[in-house]
Amino acid sequence: MLFDALDLGATFVFAISGATQGVRRRLDLFGVLVVAWAAGVAGGITRDLLIGAVPPAAIAEWRYFAVTIAAGLVGFFASGQINRLKTPVQLFDAAGLCLFAVTGTGKALAYGLNPFVAAILGMITCIGGGVARDLLTLEVPTVLRAELYAVAALAGAGSISLGFVLGLPHLPVALFGAGLCLFLRLMSLYRGWSLPVVHAAGASSKETD
Amino acid sequence: MLFDALDLGATFVFAISGATQGVRRRLDLFGVLVVAWAAGVAGGITRDLLIGAVPPAAIAEWRYFAVTIAAGLVGFFASGQINRLKTPVQLFDAAGLCLFAVTGTGKALAYGLNPFVAAILGMITCIGGGVARDLLTLEVPTVLRAELYAVAALAGAGSISLGFVLGLPHLPVALFGAGLCLFLRLMSLYRGWSLPVVHAAGASSKETD
Amino acid sequence: MLFDALDLGATFVFAISGATQGVRRRLDLFGVLVVAWAAGVAGGITRDLLIGAVPPAAIAEWRYFAVTIAAGLVGFFASGQINRLKTPVQLFDAAGLCLFAVTGTGKALAYGLNPFVAAILGMITCIGGGVARDLLTLEVPTVLRAELYAVAALAGAGSISLGFVLGLPHLPVALFGAGLCLFLRLMSLYRGWSLPVVHAAGASSKETD
Repeated sequence: MLFDALDLGATFVFAISGATQGVRRRLDLFGVLVVAWAAGVAGGITRDLLIGAVPPAAIAEWRYFAVTIAAGLVGFFASGQINRLKTPVQLFDAAGLCLFAVTGTGKALAYGLNPFVAAILGMITCIGGGVARDLLTLEVPTVLRAELYAVAALAGAGSISLGFVLGLPHLPVALFGAGLCLFLRLMSLYRGWSLPVVHAAGASSKETD
Repeated sequence: MLFDALDLGATFVFAISGATQGVRRRLDLFGVLVVAWAAGVAGGITRDLLIGAVPPAAIAEWRYFAVTIAAGLVGFFASGQINRLKTPVQLFDAAGLCLFAVTGTGKALAYGLNPFVAAILGMITCIGGGVARDLLTLEVPTVLRAELYAVAALAGAGSISLGFVLGLPHLPVALFGAGLCLFLRLMSLYRGWSLPVVHAAGASSKETD
Repeated sequence: MLFDALDLGATFVFAISGATQGVRRRLDLFGVLVVAWAAGVAGGITRDLLIGAVPPAAIAEWRYFAVTIAAGLVGFFASGQINRLKTPVQLFDAAGLCLFAVTGTGKALAYGLNPFVAAILGMITCIGGGVARDLLTLEVPTVLRAELYAVAALAGAGSISLGFVLGLPHLPVALFGAGLCLFLRLMSLYRGWSLPVVHAAGASSKETD
């Protein structure tokens, strides 16, 4: 039940980020709905294909379709309010990132995969929606441009995987993992956090831009 | 048998649309063949992966390969004649759209999925080829730009799914669904049909372009 | 054992090509690692999804993750030395191409697919990594621009498939297939080799560029 709510929640916020980006690219309503749908379901579909859970939940359950369409409509008709936020696409993206870290990792563990693989699958689930959204609108995927994106997803998924394997109670572990992922991502967005090695090494190959 | 013919037919016309777009992007013969192949098989492969029918028919049967190569050669060597059509890529795309609505929905139902899921899968099958073609050639996918594209696919797939579930005879249902999809798409292409809500709401977010 | 070494080797060199392209696009370390990972694993994951081998080896075994991260680090920190090569991305890409021809075809045959399908799957395995790398960095995929790319992959995969089916000893067949693929690709890169038909027919549709 909790899993379903989190997975639908992640789908919803990713769909909002997709809709918002679609509105920015001046797509009409249907284009916006398609980007919202793709952004919302791509992560979960990728996860389900990779673990052999076919048909993927995001296809087989009408709730995912309904949730992405609802998010697309909200993103389209409330685009004025949403754009008053400073970085709306990235903000909703971050919310989806941390929720999918929980459900991606959890579902992989439930399918009997080992903790390391589950963490990688959690990360892929997190990344999938943003990659689909950005490729469809022909932008370089956020995961390549943002410093603490894949790392935040992996940190969240990894800590959840570790906690579940150690037999710790699920709810606190999920909250901690999601919180860690969200914290790292928001610090990167608003405080410019990154690992020191990047600044040192990146400088030599980034002398001009 | 009818299913096979329709699926190969959809593959062929999508491959033509891919080849035509490849020629426009000034790809050489091999590039054109690759776009033709990807456009032709992407929809069917996506459908088969999502319902767990592996290896996908478009890989496992040599006829799909032969059909896409033939379409690619036609698209390459007859590009002069094809380009005399007003919107050749969109025209062949529309033909593929309505054929895949039948086979995508039908195969999903045959795999025991419920009517709603089958309609969604039919829509995805329709969309897949065009998305692959457009992403490979770095264009914003038609499904995002054209108003009655996903809607036409969903209308066709939905009516087929409904008809099959109600136990109506397959051939008329398939013809009706394919015809509905084709009609909506062609009206959108040549008459600028769209749903009223888009004009009303889209206007506010499209003041400049 | 040999299969594993070749598959990891192919993953490594594709990851280097991804990292090198990432550095060129001025991505920071994390972006480079993500492109390296995607370029390294996309071919194998695609192959495994298409034959139903889930979870794919490139996800389920930590060695693939380690190898792509190592390749990403090498590509990032040794980018100066790598860029002294004339066409480093294409060179490492060619190495991965010929290795994946062996493992893609071999794994498909081991899963009981017929020789024709195995050759197609070998070709798809070869192509996958480069397509992922190029799409993520928003470049037209090499497979569409380079004349003897898909053809080299198909020639290598086809000869391996034929040799295995004829019961010839595996090692020489693998060496021949990989060598054929590499030879064709390098001749295309450095000598401008292509099939004559392309020059004749391509001319009419490429009068300007």
